[in-house]
Amino acid sequence: MRTPLCDRFGIDLPIFGFTPSEHVAAAISRAGGLGVLGCVRFNAAEELDAVLSWMDENTDGKPYGVDIVMPAKVPAEGSQTDLTKLIPEGHRSFVDKVLQDLSVPPLPDDTDERAGVLGWLHSVARSHVDVALNHRISLIANALGSPPADVISRAHEAGVPVAALAGKGAHALRHVDGGVDLVVAQGHEAGGHTGEIASMVLVPEVVDAVGDRAPVLAAGGIGSGRQMAAALALGASGVWTGSIWLTTEEYHQTMPGSTAMQRALVSATSADTVRTRVYTGKPARLLKTRWTEAWAAPEAPDPLPMPLQNLLVSHAHNRIHAADDPTVVSMPVGQIVGRMNRIRPVAEVIADLVEGYEEAVSRLDKTR
Amino acid sequence: MRTPLCDRFGIDLPIFGFTPSEHVAAAISRAGGLGVLGCVRFNAAEELDAVLSWMDENTDGKPYGVDIVMPAKVPAEGSQTDLTKLIPEGHRSFVDKVLQDLSVPPLPDDTDERAGVLGWLHSVARSHVDVALNHRISLIANALGSPPADVISRAHEAGVPVAALAGKGAHALRHVDGGVDLVVAQGHEAGGHTGEIASMVLVPEVVDAVGDRAPVLAAGGIGSGRQMAAALALGASGVWTGSIWLTTEEYHQTMPGSTAMQRALVSATSADTVRTRVYTGKPARLLKTRWTEAWAAPEAPDPLPMPLQNLLVSHAHNRIHAADDPTVVSMPVGQIVGRMNRIRPVAEVIADLVEGYEEAVSRLDKTR
Repeated sequence: MRTPLCDRFGIDLPIFGFTPSEHVAAAISRAGGLGVLGCVRFNAAEELDAVLSWMDENTDGKPYGVDIVMPAKVPAEGSQTDLTKLIPEGHRSFVDKVLQDLSVPPLPDDTDERAGVLGWLHSVARSHVDVALNHRISLIANALGSPPADVISRAHEAGVPVAALAGKGAHALRHVDGGVDLVVAQGHEAGGHTGEIASMVLVPEVVDAVGDRAPVLAAGGIGSGRQMAAALALGASGVWTGSIWLTTEEYHQTMPGSTAMQRALVSATSADTVRTRVYTGKPARLLKTRWTEAWAAPEAPDPLPMPLQNLLVSHAHNRIHAADDPTVVSMPVGQIVGRMNRIRPVAEVIADLVEGYEEAVSRLDKTR
Repeated sequence: MRTPLCDRFGIDLPIFGFTPSEHVAAAISRAGGLGVLGCVRFNAAEELDAVLSWMDENTDGKPYGVDIVMPAKVPAEGSQTDLTKLIPEGHRSFVDKVLQDLSVPPLPDDTDERAGVLGWLHSVARSHVDVALNHRISLIANALGSPPADVISRAHEAGVPVAALAGKGAHALRHVDGGVDLVVAQGHEAGGHTGEIASMVLVPEVVDAVGDRAPVLAAGGIGSGRQMAAALALGASGVWTGSIWLTTEEYHQTMPGSTAMQRALVSATSADTVRTRVYTGKPARLLKTRWTEAWAAPEAPDPLPMPLQNLLVSHAHNRIHAADDPTVVSMPVGQIVGRMNRIRPVAEVIADLVEGYEEAVSRLDKTR
């Protein structure tokens, strides 16, 4: 399974794997794909620096990338204190009541609680770019909209290509007009921030919109070799995957408190997700749990705009995380969750993708 | 492009084309696919009988099928008068006001107005089955849920296979358990009644759920050879298409008053659809127009359950149809509408599907 993208990035397989775990990202790169580390969880630049040093040393010299959230259109600045003042009291009391109703215990007094998610702020995201460019990275991806022009310029000066996610052909055109090198066409079925157009329609739309100006990765609904073959049949040069790495052994071993989340994912069907604004303020597909259902109730307030919604729920997320209850998980995941039924090593997931791909392509070949 | 389904149905191409126009259906069959005539528009059995006689004579002896709406779970019986009494006055006045706001003129006094859509009623659907079994049909499809057991038995006695649409793996299993011979996995991106799971995830889910008990057709998002190759890569044995036939020359020539609808479809993008209950009472994807937007307004009432909603809007549909205004169309269509940009003959659409399929499969073959 090779496409021209493999040569361009020096990888064996055109499989890009997004994950917040450096252990998973490194395993994806070591297995021949390109692991992309999600940086939004790092508030302190020093913390990211240390993790990327670890990546440099644990990827067998193979390429890896980083994913940084830089929402181009959101006025996402100001200190956390300033922003916190903008959160209505009614929203706070709703969150408190939901946590009580769902029997989510308070955090122990000695918890060193993570302060909000500052990675959504531009200044923090730019500090991530600074840090990442000092490491052996092969890609900077922006998880939300077109990356700012200065970030693209700095990446290009360092010889690092830039990727951006698109939910419409028009988004993709805006990205390449701004200098983006690699477009991720993310369909409705994807986990996290996602639009309304499904991969089957979106991928060829984006491929045709950007033409030969940039290769396109298909994202959304890809967890098997058949789906990877479908993505390439649609014109993609490779795939961008995220959800499928959440149920890996490496994720479990290195992300504290992931047991309840993995139990919830393993038992979920493809119908057990919901696209909602409750995670960040922008529509994102999450696992459907008692937490998302509480926000869908008639008495629930409308979620706040980004970045306020994430600040509003960040303490709740910490409590939910500590509660370790599969029915109250708050987790972005795509519809492919219905097929994530076992905890497996990263290398096995990759081997299955390759085997399934080969089988699908031979099967298609026989129809000619 | 051949799959075992071609031998089973005696067709050259595993392309099933659903359409309310007998001229389009016949052209699909003549071009090597299997045209499936939607019967819900026929209230009188005699009318359907005459049209199927025409099909018998205009398909060059090639196979064709019929699609009949038999909602298994809906208590869809009673005379139109009885049902009409169940429609709240507030809903009627809302529809009247919207039509006025949208400048949709009343019908001329001498209009021979179609009476509701009785095809949704079980007794009418069964009369369609009676009529169809007297013709040279190769398939009876049920557009909504599992077909009733007696209908499956009668079709099988006549040697006619039965197809049913599924939006989840569980639906598909229920269908084959009930004797259905062919499952149509219809993704979220499809036009008309459609579920939440996108084709990329749904097709392999349904294929694996039914195993070798029934072949699976992929529906939703399929309008090009690349998409057809993707569907087969996902494990489908063929494709079920609907939207793409709405912008054919044959449709235009034979469906009176389709000019405004076709103008609206040709200029729409993939983002210009909405999944809503306003057409029948069940969620269906429609072209987004000023009509659907009016129902999405805060002051709009919730749509009524099936079959009442269709009775409520049937007169409005007649007025909208006569108004011939592309901005006030009420029409089921999938997200593929973004690529339906020209009025073309059916044979050209089929030729493009075949050519694009061959190109996609050769391209995939080179990645091995």
